Amino acid sequence: MQLLATGGLPNFSTTKVAKLAGIPQSNLYIYFQNKQDLLNAVYQTTVHEESVAVVAALTPQSDLTTQLATSITALYDFARQRPQVVATVQALTADAQFKHQLTLKQADQENQQIQALIQRGVAEHVLRPVDLNLLRYFLTQPVFHFASGVTNAQYADTPTSRQQLTTMLMAAILTTPAFTDWQAHNAH
Amino acid sequence: MQLLATGGLPNFSTTKVAKLAGIPQSNLYIYFQNKQDLLNAVYQTTVHEESVAVVAALTPQSDLTTQLATSITALYDFARQRPQVVATVQALTADAQFKHQLTLKQADQENQQIQALIQRGVAEHVLRPVDLNLLRYFLTQPVFHFASGVTNAQYADTPTSRQQLTTMLMAAILTTPAFTDWQAHNAH
Repeated sequence: MQLLATGGLPNFSTTKVAKLAGIPQSNLYIYFQNKQDLLNAVYQTTVHEESVAVVAALTPQSDLTTQLATSITALYDFARQRPQVVATVQALTADAQFKHQLTLKQADQENQQIQALIQRGVAEHVLRPVDLNLLRYFLTQPVFHFASGVTNAQYADTPTSRQQLTTMLMAAILTTPAFTDWQAHNAH
Repeated sequence: MQLLATGGLPNFSTTKVAKLAGIPQSNLYIYFQNKQDLLNAVYQTTVHEESVAVVAALTPQSDLTTQLATSITALYDFARQRPQVVATVQALTADAQFKHQLTLKQADQENQQIQALIQRGVAEHVLRPVDLNLLRYFLTQPVFHFASGVTNAQYADTPTSRQQLTTMLMAAILTTPAFTDWQAHNAH
């Protein structure tokens, strides 16, 4: 994580991992078949940690729209608390072609739960009928951008600015009726 | 551009630039004071090329909302035609702290023109009253993401999918009345 978050993927090597861990490089291969296998493991772990943080905040008794808004807030809090985890996921997914090679275990229940929420949203016409990956992009990347901007004092961290971000994202992903509905119940 | 687009900023060095250009490293310093100066020049050039492509598509006689939608379409076309330019800008701006050190000449008239359009949008209550950088983020990053996804065959490149992206972004940045208005005039 430290290497990926700081230097990005092009700068990553198992040599550097071994050096930083203070072990012979050959020992790495006891745990991981190769570099790709190691990167997959980092990807699993970081996405899982992110998903657990989001799912923990969800209240299954709430309606779908509320849960989507909650997922944005929860992810923002996570990004502020664990910037290195987020930077690692960003480093691993920055290159679309490389991202394609990464695999997530179907067994990541929390991640599957978020995916199911989005699928349900599309089926129930709450979310726009676009590619699920595009919806997921909107639910994550602008949140990370905003959180990193706050960390770097480029964006103000006020209840209003956070609320505005959520509103922008909800407007992007929700169908017009669902957004109007959500706005009516969240007047402020 | 080639080095930044492929290897990102952490992997960039003036040694590599000189090698790729086939000139002694010392010669680089005839043109650029130091590495930061060189990166600034790359940033200027790439952002300028991007801005020129967007501004060329704008029709000043159209209303502000139409121009914003046009800027999204124009940027998408640009990203599809010039992926290396976009990847370079992405590489330079991925790290928020580094981005802060980059400077753009006030003399970049095309870039200033886009900035002025956004400022006017906020003043006229067409755009949400959020940080200008956040508005600019929405007008660029998701477009680049979508374009790179299309290039990698992860997203479909159809008039519908492109229109949906524009709608999502317009919903994110426009105030509710402005979005409703725009939708009414763009029923399809």
